[in-house]
Amino acid sequence: MLRMSTLFVRTLREDPVDAEVASHRLLLRAGYIRRAAPGIYTWLPLGLKVLAKVEAIVREEMDAAGGQEVHFPALLPREPYEVTGRWTEYGPNLFRLSDRKGGDYLLAPTHEEVFTLLVKDLYSSYKDLPLTIYQIQTKYRDEARPRAGLLRGREFIMKDSYSFDIDDEGLERSYQIQREAYITIFERLGIEYVIVQAQSGAMGGSKSEEFLSPTEVGEDTYVRSPGGYTANVEAVTTPVPPAIDFSDAPAAHVEDTPDTPTIATLVDMANARHPRPDRPWTAADTLKNVVLALTSPAGERSLLVVGIPGDREADMTRLEAALSPATVEPANEDDFKAYPKLAKGYIGPGALGPQARPAGVARGEEGDTAIPYLVDPRIVPGTRWITGADSPGQHVFELTMGRDFVADSTIEAAEVRAGDEAPDGSGPLELARGVELGHIFQLGRKYAQALDLKVLDVNGKQQVVTMGSYGFGVTRAVALLAEQNHDELGLAWPIQVAPYHVHVVATGKDEAVFAAAEKLASGLEAAGIEVMYDDRPRASPGVKFKDSELLGAPYIVVVGRGLENGTVEFKNRTTADAVEIPVGEAVTVVATAVRQALSD
Amino acid sequence: MLRMSTLFVRTLREDPVDAEVASHRLLLRAGYIRRAAPGIYTWLPLGLKVLAKVEAIVREEMDAAGGQEVHFPALLPREPYEVTGRWTEYGPNLFRLSDRKGGDYLLAPTHEEVFTLLVKDLYSSYKDLPLTIYQIQTKYRDEARPRAGLLRGREFIMKDSYSFDIDDEGLERSYQIQREAYITIFERLGIEYVIVQAQSGAMGGSKSEEFLSPTEVGEDTYVRSPGGYTANVEAVTTPVPPAIDFSDAPAAHVEDTPDTPTIATLVDMANARHPRPDRPWTAADTLKNVVLALTSPAGERSLLVVGIPGDREADMTRLEAALSPATVEPANEDDFKAYPKLAKGYIGPGALGPQARPAGVARGEEGDTAIPYLVDPRIVPGTRWITGADSPGQHVFELTMGRDFVADSTIEAAEVRAGDEAPDGSGPLELARGVELGHIFQLGRKYAQALDLKVLDVNGKQQVVTMGSYGFGVTRAVALLAEQNHDELGLAWPIQVAPYHVHVVATGKDEAVFAAAEKLASGLEAAGIEVMYDDRPRASPGVKFKDSELLGAPYIVVVGRGLENGTVEFKNRTTADAVEIPVGEAVTVVATAVRQALSD
Repeated sequence: MLRMSTLFVRTLREDPVDAEVASHRLLLRAGYIRRAAPGIYTWLPLGLKVLAKVEAIVREEMDAAGGQEVHFPALLPREPYEVTGRWTEYGPNLFRLSDRKGGDYLLAPTHEEVFTLLVKDLYSSYKDLPLTIYQIQTKYRDEARPRAGLLRGREFIMKDSYSFDIDDEGLERSYQIQREAYITIFERLGIEYVIVQAQSGAMGGSKSEEFLSPTEVGEDTYVRSPGGYTANVEAVTTPVPPAIDFSDAPAAHVEDTPDTPTIATLVDMANARHPRPDRPWTAADTLKNVVLALTSPAGERSLLVVGIPGDREADMTRLEAALSPATVEPANEDDFKAYPKLAKGYIGPGALGPQARPAGVARGEEGDTAIPYLVDPRIVPGTRWITGADSPGQHVFELTMGRDFVADSTIEAAEVRAGDEAPDGSGPLELARGVELGHIFQLGRKYAQALDLKVLDVNGKQQVVTMGSYGFGVTRAVALLAEQNHDELGLAWPIQVAPYHVHVVATGKDEAVFAAAEKLASGLEAAGIEVMYDDRPRASPGVKFKDSELLGAPYIVVVGRGLENGTVEFKNRTTADAVEIPVGEAVTVVATAVRQALSD
Repeated sequence: MLRMSTLFVRTLREDPVDAEVASHRLLLRAGYIRRAAPGIYTWLPLGLKVLAKVEAIVREEMDAAGGQEVHFPALLPREPYEVTGRWTEYGPNLFRLSDRKGGDYLLAPTHEEVFTLLVKDLYSSYKDLPLTIYQIQTKYRDEARPRAGLLRGREFIMKDSYSFDIDDEGLERSYQIQREAYITIFERLGIEYVIVQAQSGAMGGSKSEEFLSPTEVGEDTYVRSPGGYTANVEAVTTPVPPAIDFSDAPAAHVEDTPDTPTIATLVDMANARHPRPDRPWTAADTLKNVVLALTSPAGERSLLVVGIPGDREADMTRLEAALSPATVEPANEDDFKAYPKLAKGYIGPGALGPQARPAGVARGEEGDTAIPYLVDPRIVPGTRWITGADSPGQHVFELTMGRDFVADSTIEAAEVRAGDEAPDGSGPLELARGVELGHIFQLGRKYAQALDLKVLDVNGKQQVVTMGSYGFGVTRAVALLAEQNHDELGLAWPIQVAPYHVHVVATGKDEAVFAAAEKLASGLEAAGIEVMYDDRPRASPGVKFKDSELLGAPYIVVVGRGLENGTVEFKNRTTADAVEIPVGEAVTVVATAVRQALSD
């Protein structure tokens, strides 16, 4: 039994200054966690109990799915991450350190490399496969902007599993088994989720899905269509319209368009000075060329221009996903100075891409002075654009893709907007926000190839193994549970993860009340119910009620004035339903309710 | 049920090359752990199960002793460790790193500072005390020589508790409660132990004891006397003999003693040329002055000379403990060059200590050119010595402590030898080796003072809190258990920490055997027994027997040829006792034996 008089906790009446989201605010106020450093938290007793329950559910489902638990170090040597390139690719997100002998180490953000090496160490035949191993372990990521408490920390607990198969069908099976286990975990935790298509990002690999939990405080944007398409915004692909016959298209013509540095001013001037016969020009008729500076993981800076319809913004999240592992930022003054051909505000395809390259010189080859030019997939041959004429104060009209300009390739750089068509034709997209709790990947052979994990196949030949990796944010799940289970009074835990099932509150100063409360709490404990007993002799009923609501046990039993009539109050924290029940039946009634809730 | 056919394990027939101690060798061979980097290990499924059982026992006893579990980060900011001086004092043993913003962090080797700050954050009154909080958590220590597998690693799991009290009596009570809990933990784990007095070392504080487990592979030496005195060798104090009246002592005289750079050559020459009338000179009549170089945590190097009787060696372990946090090494050629007065091999007290200091200049003050001189506690006033005359080829005889020389202080620098008297007069000491598994400290007010942890006392005054800290090496306990429970065939786990209780081995190729074994294993599992079933269809009986002995389950059941007669073999791994039992009764017999063993 936890006793409030000795429990290591202090509740706060006031919201902490820098805690913006509810889970962060309430976990701090209720004394579940404390901040140790930016993005680094200490678990107090109540928080640790919730964490342990979440871990236990995850472990049970991993075991049920045939996973075998192992445990890797957090401190790992550089070498395997050097082999796969991730020592560099992780950039400043990786905590790196040296030991006393100068050896390079990292605090692992994820463990693909060493899982691969471990299987290589132990296994050698297709008969050993399939294999799924997992760990629940502390991970590190030097986030640029740790935020929202446990939602985006720098030291956090993850469950990561890895599957190993001899062939693609095996990988698909292992992937589906993990996917099903994830669904069960989310259902047991009672966390809302959507499964969305995702980009693989720094992980590599062919296919991946995210388990997002919908919430306004989420950092991830995803889309869904009436027909069931869901994807992380980074993974949304733009339906490519058919090419247009441009044999009759009017010739391009350059016009003076002074003082039109923005799309809006350009559209206004076009309508004023060069009106279109059939309808007014809109931003969608313009082609905006955005100059970006890329920095490779090795630190090399280079320019890239992205062309998108002028009615859309460039989406930095989608750009970063498309260009990973390079990082992206808008080009700066120095970048422009290095390319005098770039007429800021009037940049057109003329100075860019393949057609600006010297004859016979390919993109990136020596002698290539042109900037790579990637365009939105909507910019297909035959589309006609108002765009920069590469000369200050001038734009070109009717510039026709495929006739007057070409690009090096396409890129998903434009924002996704509500109402855009889903790529699978399943209807207009809706946008929503969520937090990523799980991410499952079909890695394929990338890591096994790099680290030479091969086994003998049925014909006695060496085969590279194919892998999956499956992450679940345990720490983040605790935050999500708080986020989805609270009200203005405090936390309201689902019973399967609550730090204790019942909060018994003794009010007043009457010794008979404390004796009855103690007896009730002991009776519940004897019945296998997890109890917190607020036995503080000097705290007022108001303080005790507030604490019980803030701390968030699913059931609250108040022993107080009703005792004169032989009753105690039995409250449901979430629904706020309260009933008076006879004190003599309280253990049975409460224990039955708890058991019922646990088995639901 | 674990199935050997799918369990993620590979046993090795050969001993790994660089594994010297049995626990390291066998945990590797049996596939419990794998090395990830020097002193850094990965836990495979079987190892993790043992680890979890040890953790569970430690947790239960901590909870039973009123401890409350919390969980701190491993990655901590520098500041609190700067305040207490340990950021520097830990020297190269501390893993230090910087984050992307240049902030200094460490991987914590122990958590006194942040526990102190957490209590300061939450508590403010004597009414909140006593408090004992603990964690089971991953710690880091950049050992100069990680060795012996899990016995001395660089990333390892510890249980660390911290007690907080308002006064010394409270601390003593909290300390005794933890001490009792430790005794229970050792008894439940079945680990042999001795409790020895210890030095507090880098921790600071007034009193500490170590829980050592006696083993030849231990790095710690401890002593015990017939009367019950026990101490870590660092903590042994030398009984100080009474001073001797030297009013009639003969005058000191310098003699030529060429070519006597060692004690042995000196004693030989003394007996040959300057014989003593009553008995021959022995090494115990000589005073050996050992020149040491100290390096402070801040990196400053200075010299120190230690005088000990010539029949004893200087003990570097005791010296290091006495001089901590400085590190110690023998002086090198450059050190000697810096002090031309030091006549190597003929160093006497003349050039050292307080009497070599300029008049009016104290040790360490400006103008002090003498080297500090500390002597063994046996060197009391009136003792007479043959020692160096500070001139090559010369020694001085009858040099009398208190008359002819003095020292700055005493130091416990000499080796402890079997037969030495215990400091409490409880008889001659015996020496033994052990591994430190637990260390409990009465820290007192050192950390609370440094970090300003005060609470209001009963009179409403601010009082500095007094603390204890209590460490237990969870990872190391797993190694110790392997060390103390193995034979030439492999591991032999005590049932309370075994990865599974019973190993069912099906031998041969007969399908009836596999069917019977499967049924038996399932029956045991249904009875709540943890079972490993060796269901490999193609492994030979010899391989299976060897594996069952190497892996070390307490009980082994062999289903094989006996089945024709309706029996299976039931073996005790530790005693090697084996009996044939009827297959129909096997579940009952085995389950009963397991339950009996678990309840013992």
